[in-house]
Amino acid sequence: MAQYMDVHHGMKGITREQLEEAHKAGLAVEGDEGVHFERAWADPDSGVVYCLSEAPSADAVKRIHERTGHPADEIHPVPLSIW
Amino acid sequence: MAQYMDVHHGMKGITREQLEEAHKAGLAVEGDEGVHFERAWADPDSGVVYCLSEAPSADAVKRIHERTGHPADEIHPVPLSIW
Repeated sequence: MAQYMDVHHGMKGITREQLEEAHKAGLAVEGDEGVHFERAWADPDSGVVYCLSEAPSADAVKRIHERTGHPADEIHPVPLSIW
Repeated sequence: MAQYMDVHHGMKGITREQLEEAHKAGLAVEGDEGVHFERAWADPDSGVVYCLSEAPSADAVKRIHERTGHPADEIHPVPLSIW
């Protein structure tokens, strides 16, 4: 398992409810791919959303986001982190 | 105070030690601007680094990063988050 940060663009105007709904949609199916979405952050003004996950691969993250209708524009493994 | 996610590009090959050193450099001076760097994640392969902070403004984050020699390429307020 590794950590991934993925980025979605074009989400201008996203609301707290929409972010929560998208996150819940991911949680509902993430187990099929061994993914877990841990955190998400959104900037409604610029339309960027960041999701932090633990997953077996970037492709697994990609497939879960696609299944929920929220394809990611970038998915980066982040093997280095400071907590 | 608000949360910000900033992004650095061009950090290919960054090591754990370099990430920790950069984070510590920020912690050493962040108080001057009322900023606190909470987390950082790095992908040495693509050279992208994400920093999560609490700060009074994006400009405050910008100035701290500049002072430590690590100017950010993007700084986004992230008023929406899921923890």
